[in-house]
Amino acid sequence: MSIITIERKVLEKNDEIAELNRARFREHRLFVFNLLSSPGAGKTTLLERTIEALRGDLRIGVIEGDVQTDVDAQRVARYGVPAVQIVTNGGCHLEARLVRDALGSLDPGALDLLVIENVGNLVCPANYDLGEAAKVVVLSTAEGDDKPLKYPAMFRRASVLVVNKIDLLPYVNAKVETIEQHARQINPALTIFQTSCTTGEGIPPWCDWLRRQVAAARA
Amino acid sequence: MSIITIERKVLEKNDEIAELNRARFREHRLFVFNLLSSPGAGKTTLLERTIEALRGDLRIGVIEGDVQTDVDAQRVARYGVPAVQIVTNGGCHLEARLVRDALGSLDPGALDLLVIENVGNLVCPANYDLGEAAKVVVLSTAEGDDKPLKYPAMFRRASVLVVNKIDLLPYVNAKVETIEQHARQINPALTIFQTSCTTGEGIPPWCDWLRRQVAAARA
Repeated sequence: MSIITIERKVLEKNDEIAELNRARFREHRLFVFNLLSSPGAGKTTLLERTIEALRGDLRIGVIEGDVQTDVDAQRVARYGVPAVQIVTNGGCHLEARLVRDALGSLDPGALDLLVIENVGNLVCPANYDLGEAAKVVVLSTAEGDDKPLKYPAMFRRASVLVVNKIDLLPYVNAKVETIEQHARQINPALTIFQTSCTTGEGIPPWCDWLRRQVAAARA
Repeated sequence: MSIITIERKVLEKNDEIAELNRARFREHRLFVFNLLSSPGAGKTTLLERTIEALRGDLRIGVIEGDVQTDVDAQRVARYGVPAVQIVTNGGCHLEARLVRDALGSLDPGALDLLVIENVGNLVCPANYDLGEAAKVVVLSTAEGDDKPLKYPAMFRRASVLVVNKIDLLPYVNAKVETIEQHARQINPALTIFQTSCTTGEGIPPWCDWLRRQVAAARA
């Protein structure tokens, strides 16, 4: 019982800091999204394709969250964008205070788009608001089409679903129509994109959506 | 600080109950393994192929852990084995007390092999001993070959790694040799199997290993 109370306090405190982060992002007219998925669904590769497509037009920054290693921040930094690594040392999700601290190593006023790549985990990160404008959940077709039903909190709280690795559809036991149907059953308002970071299919509509969000945040 | 103390207390209490579960399993000479992976790596399908191969020789029981739904217990029960579903209602891992409670709906004395399929999560379940004799972690080739380095706790605490979906190797950006090399870098003692639940490749050696563990628990 006392544990539940403390968990609630942790979440309340997190939400307070998230609102401060959100106010700061608004002040800088910066569009920020929280990128979420299971391990290996392709978050970092989607981010690489996205930076390639948008870096000519938009000033992009990245906060990378990982349990261990700074491999992902290194991958992203290769594209010449500012990238800050948060290592959670075993922690299963990012929290608003970690993002607030990471902002000390970025200049939000010099960015148009900030991506926060969360720890690979389809459960815990759903509960922690970081101050983002949108949660974007990535699901690989190789994970099967039942995942929205089995991990509903993440899909309920997301604004966008990116169904990734559609190049694997001929080889896996999942239909993209069933994934979308299950996802909309949990959250009818979801905006859904289908992408392959291997072939590049579906990257342009996803990047167009991002451009529109950045323009709206600036207006 | 008080939160860290409470987390430690939660883990200590969990470990106490896990030891009671373990003593109970030993008393019944029952081999129990904890089946772990990211969402969609193929735990339930591996379990289905395993039950098909072993149900003629061994009396198998299953405890299914899920955040929501009893889809997995239904899938397994179709094979005519006793299956108990634990729904964690958003909880990101199984705990020893949930397994203890689930044992009330099973007859451990009437089983040779008990499989506990954990929540799909490569982070949190690594910390919670359930009383099992072995942790078996499943990694899909579609998740990429860097996962053992990025989620080391799970691979450090596992005895067995099943590299699953090897039929996808021609289509994904991962090499099974690199997965194994990274996994052994974290845990040199790992026993590693390569499987495809689609083609059936690699299922016999994995099932032979299980037969040997069951025989050893009985001796």
